[in-house]
Amino acid sequence: MLSLTTFGESHGPATGGVIDGLPSGLFIDDAFIRSQLRRRNPEKLPGSTSRDEPDKVQWLSGLLNNKTTGAPLGFIVENKDFRPQDYALLKDIFRPSHADYAVYLKYGVYPMPGGGRASGRETVARVVAGTVAKTLLKKYRVDFLAYVSGIGGICARVDQRSLTSGSIQNALLGCPDPDAAEKMHALIQKTSAERDTLGGTVSCVIRNVPTGLGEPVFDKLQADLAKAMLSIPSVKGFEYGSGFGAAVKKGSEHNDALFSENGNIHTRSNNDGGIQGGISTGNVLCFRVAFKPVPSHGKKQRTVDLRGKPVEIQISGRHDVCIVPRAAVVVESMAALTLADHVLRFNARKH
Amino acid sequence: MLSLTTFGESHGPATGGVIDGLPSGLFIDDAFIRSQLRRRNPEKLPGSTSRDEPDKVQWLSGLLNNKTTGAPLGFIVENKDFRPQDYALLKDIFRPSHADYAVYLKYGVYPMPGGGRASGRETVARVVAGTVAKTLLKKYRVDFLAYVSGIGGICARVDQRSLTSGSIQNALLGCPDPDAAEKMHALIQKTSAERDTLGGTVSCVIRNVPTGLGEPVFDKLQADLAKAMLSIPSVKGFEYGSGFGAAVKKGSEHNDALFSENGNIHTRSNNDGGIQGGISTGNVLCFRVAFKPVPSHGKKQRTVDLRGKPVEIQISGRHDVCIVPRAAVVVESMAALTLADHVLRFNARKH
Amino acid sequence: MLSLTTFGESHGPATGGVIDGLPSGLFIDDAFIRSQLRRRNPEKLPGSTSRDEPDKVQWLSGLLNNKTTGAPLGFIVENKDFRPQDYALLKDIFRPSHADYAVYLKYGVYPMPGGGRASGRETVARVVAGTVAKTLLKKYRVDFLAYVSGIGGICARVDQRSLTSGSIQNALLGCPDPDAAEKMHALIQKTSAERDTLGGTVSCVIRNVPTGLGEPVFDKLQADLAKAMLSIPSVKGFEYGSGFGAAVKKGSEHNDALFSENGNIHTRSNNDGGIQGGISTGNVLCFRVAFKPVPSHGKKQRTVDLRGKPVEIQISGRHDVCIVPRAAVVVESMAALTLADHVLRFNARKH
Amino acid sequence: MLSLTTFGESHGPATGGVIDGLPSGLFIDDAFIRSQLRRRNPEKLPGSTSRDEPDKVQWLSGLLNNKTTGAPLGFIVENKDFRPQDYALLKDIFRPSHADYAVYLKYGVYPMPGGGRASGRETVARVVAGTVAKTLLKKYRVDFLAYVSGIGGICARVDQRSLTSGSIQNALLGCPDPDAAEKMHALIQKTSAERDTLGGTVSCVIRNVPTGLGEPVFDKLQADLAKAMLSIPSVKGFEYGSGFGAAVKKGSEHNDALFSENGNIHTRSNNDGGIQGGISTGNVLCFRVAFKPVPSHGKKQRTVDLRGKPVEIQISGRHDVCIVPRAAVVVESMAALTLADHVLRFNARKH
Repeated sequence: MLSLTTFGESHGPATGGVIDGLPSGLFIDDAFIRSQLRRRNPEKLPGSTSRDEPDKVQWLSGLLNNKTTGAPLGFIVENKDFRPQDYALLKDIFRPSHADYAVYLKYGVYPMPGGGRASGRETVARVVAGTVAKTLLKKYRVDFLAYVSGIGGICARVDQRSLTSGSIQNALLGCPDPDAAEKMHALIQKTSAERDTLGGTVSCVIRNVPTGLGEPVFDKLQADLAKAMLSIPSVKGFEYGSGFGAAVKKGSEHNDALFSENGNIHTRSNNDGGIQGGISTGNVLCFRVAFKPVPSHGKKQRTVDLRGKPVEIQISGRHDVCIVPRAAVVVESMAALTLADHVLRFNARKH
Repeated sequence: MLSLTTFGESHGPATGGVIDGLPSGLFIDDAFIRSQLRRRNPEKLPGSTSRDEPDKVQWLSGLLNNKTTGAPLGFIVENKDFRPQDYALLKDIFRPSHADYAVYLKYGVYPMPGGGRASGRETVARVVAGTVAKTLLKKYRVDFLAYVSGIGGICARVDQRSLTSGSIQNALLGCPDPDAAEKMHALIQKTSAERDTLGGTVSCVIRNVPTGLGEPVFDKLQADLAKAMLSIPSVKGFEYGSGFGAAVKKGSEHNDALFSENGNIHTRSNNDGGIQGGISTGNVLCFRVAFKPVPSHGKKQRTVDLRGKPVEIQISGRHDVCIVPRAAVVVESMAALTLADHVLRFNARKH
Repeated sequence: MLSLTTFGESHGPATGGVIDGLPSGLFIDDAFIRSQLRRRNPEKLPGSTSRDEPDKVQWLSGLLNNKTTGAPLGFIVENKDFRPQDYALLKDIFRPSHADYAVYLKYGVYPMPGGGRASGRETVARVVAGTVAKTLLKKYRVDFLAYVSGIGGICARVDQRSLTSGSIQNALLGCPDPDAAEKMHALIQKTSAERDTLGGTVSCVIRNVPTGLGEPVFDKLQADLAKAMLSIPSVKGFEYGSGFGAAVKKGSEHNDALFSENGNIHTRSNNDGGIQGGISTGNVLCFRVAFKPVPSHGKKQRTVDLRGKPVEIQISGRHDVCIVPRAAVVVESMAALTLADHVLRFNARKH
Repeated sequence: MLSLTTFGESHGPATGGVIDGLPSGLFIDDAFIRSQLRRRNPEKLPGSTSRDEPDKVQWLSGLLNNKTTGAPLGFIVENKDFRPQDYALLKDIFRPSHADYAVYLKYGVYPMPGGGRASGRETVARVVAGTVAKTLLKKYRVDFLAYVSGIGGICARVDQRSLTSGSIQNALLGCPDPDAAEKMHALIQKTSAERDTLGGTVSCVIRNVPTGLGEPVFDKLQADLAKAMLSIPSVKGFEYGSGFGAAVKKGSEHNDALFSENGNIHTRSNNDGGIQGGISTGNVLCFRVAFKPVPSHGKKQRTVDLRGKPVEIQISGRHDVCIVPRAAVVVESMAALTLADHVLRFNARKH
């Protein structure tokens, strides 16, 4: 019911999208959008690219006095600081663990410099639309709390009950465990000096999820969340609630016992992560996402070009050592789009 | 492009579905369908329900002399051995970690005995349709190899290169590591005696995946696989290739170096699991799925009924101790549907 | 949001469908369904086939005590009185203006006896689902009034303001102009004696359409209605409001002047047929649909078989002289499905 | 499979769209796009608005050296010559037979000046995308021939077999019957002097349609064409082949007799308009579309404002007397999008 269509390549004039299915009368706060885009592209984040993109959204339609009219929201974000010369040396070369070879197989064309469509640049449109989706969910007070829970083997210990949006956004690297964050920071600097890169995990906690979201068979809420997360570049895994840990537990340990308090029904544990039978229960929704290390590291690599000729390359230019801190807002954005879509689907059935 | 619509509840007269989008002229082999349904419901599987369902497919349309005509395939599988009396004691009671409470929140009705739609019974239609999808993929020689890789903390060690369909289907519990399988077997029997249940993991290896499957942004192949897997009842997590392990590796360790041999391009490692940038590369596709323990264990549990009144229940009746061995064919089926859909989408663009 | 998936061929064991997206708690009245199916297949209708099909719906899922549970409604209607021998002489022969040749071109297979999927039999599932959609719309008191407005050049004169459901269903041939109906009846009998067939038109008036239905660009209400109507077998044209007559009017004649009365806004004329800019205005929705004559007439016809060999055929067996009276309920059903879908879409946006 | 998402309002900075699902390697000829946009907005067309819009397409993504890469084509067309002051007097007033009142009912907001989304301006994106679709269809030599067949009661007599693209585009008003065109021209000038407006019809002939396009039940080719046509602003009716004329014919007159010639199967007549059973037969596809007169005429009109207060208005500013000549290319564009989508769907099933 809520749809996002995107377009734009890293090298092109602009990235953008069309958001359709919104109710009318929704106030779109440009400052809120900017603040979320800034999380995706902070000015000074250790280990992140120095590419300077102010990422200013230009709305092309669907708004009147900053309120939605019901018509599709079209928007573009210009690509200001693109340097195709950074890619000149890599022309026709398949960078390892990039999309280059796969894109060539699929389309028969070598992707454009910078990876074309398969660039992290594409996530700008996700954050714009995800922030609009958060706006739609504001009336339910849905609270999105994605944070860095691991980088390169350093795991954060976080009491999820005490998390706040502010505590995450003020934390070093967006990791609310200060000790772990310091170690992550040091690891990023060391890895940067080694011209290498790091992966990590983002954990996401969502409070005040409306009940009843999700369809019982194919469009289970966790299924749509999993798809949303695995559609983010570099994501390798998704788990919710007890996740992979559930596989080693017994039923008697794992079941979430129900109890009643003041007329409301709760569970004593939350192994089901806020979802049962594919449907949200009102419990805290929590999941975790794994990101692989950035494939563009600065060490020498062996690969082939599109004629199959072996070449040795060393990727220079601006590249993140670790995109995980920048990815947290993308995780939130995709979760917000998923929930907003299911809220609309739920509303449709109210009779 | 390939669609499966399903219907049917555990308690009702039949479960079924409609498969649309198939090419005409495809030979549907009933013996193949039966063999796959038998994997979902083996006669003698330790730890599985004794419910005797021959699971015979009745085709209602779309076939002429066992070949597809291009019209939708409608089918039903009758529910023969349903015993609603098993559920009489649980009337209006929310079983912990079942869908009962969530379904009540969403629809305002207490689900039907046996969980209604949210029953493992629903996976029959997935296996029927998945086997049809495997038939569609036969001309590409796509080989689906899902096996039990863990039960209750016992992990199998498997050399994926030597896997065959036969070695899996002949193995105890569908786990091709005989030592681990023996231990799993013993654990299942011990847990059964304790009236408790177990979770586990299924790993899936798919060979000869056509190249170029998957869309570059939202419908990445791993995204659609993740959705397909998380739509299976009891699944809590999905990872592909190096999965969550990628989060602790460096880029220089993780990248899959490309090389050329006899005019073909390969990679030295397969951390990307056969997919790059959302698109299949022709490399072996591999992923892993986590299942939570069966929530219907036989120990006493505290819960509430739909008026919020606390009750203590003890679930009797036929229930699996561990559904993981029966789930492997469901995992393969959902993967086959996903790949077949993307093959059709790929074909559409051939120009 | 409301979906109907159908399956089944004329010659097969059953025709059926799956209706998904319904709210829970909707009472499905089997007598209402039967009454609508009876309109599609009346016992004694001049010019209609004598095939005796009681058309009994078997619900397979989605109902508990005749109320929807929110799960998909699966249903089948058995094909009881099929006589494949009627088609033996036509084996491999392309009947003129039937789908035989087109189906052969598309699927490479000769369609099954009776036209396979391309049979009027397929409309049974539309009427079942359309009646469910009418049930969904009951709370808005939406009133569907489709009637025969023309057969073989005889046009009915009908004051649409005085139409009622009863006046249509009691009228000869479902045509509420008694004089015209008599002439149509006579024409049908004469044409039957000539072994020929007739086409005609169905006009449809829908009262109490909720306002605001329809999307402003591609999914305009008239666009979805047009698609729904042109998907009915034998339909050749669709017009709404002033329709083709609009093409010869001037703007000053055609515009519907707005006025206000007792706080409500109305229009003095209704050339726009209850829809402006693709969106329902609350005014009476009216449209008209043209049906071609039944292609299975009993005169000699020249055609070819699938090897291109010229043959002369004479179609015997039971065939309608004119399906238009039976089609009125199909028109209503498709309109009801379209409106119900848009009601759900409208509800989704309520914020 | 081929999707067009559009955005943009008459009053906004730009109109645009995203075309997805295209094969890679397709050459997009900007001159071809310009020529088609020019048909929508000719420099000197009697009875058309003098608004000067060069309508220059800016491609934002999906192209490399003017060839498609397989990524979505994003594009915008700037709105250069908008004059909101023309609408100042109409603020909060519901123009008769415009979308104003319906949009207000649906969204609770008064549409933007110029009709917002419900403006003919929106068809720019249809023509851009439709021309891309024509490019996709070039390899099949599909030939789109839409022409003005009637304006204000004056009907053109055209031998469709002799039509060519050139003969239409060079003809006065795009009407290939010179006598009728002269009369239409005179009528437009007379009606313009009267400050009134005219409707008309567009007929469309499509040659070399690939066989086998269209799905047999709900997505019949004529159903998707009908939806596409009725989604065009001001369209009131659609008929294909013999259309409404079929309703007054007998089966023996109407059936298209098949014969074989040089190994190919043809029909002696084409009442079925190139489609049987919802599927294209390779015969010439032909249909006709009715447009209502432009609702913005310059005579005095009675209406109400959004508080229901009666007002008398007289619409000034630039408005077409008759948009039918400009609409022919929009009709072709929507037909091309429909056919291209079905070509991709057909290809998907090739096995």
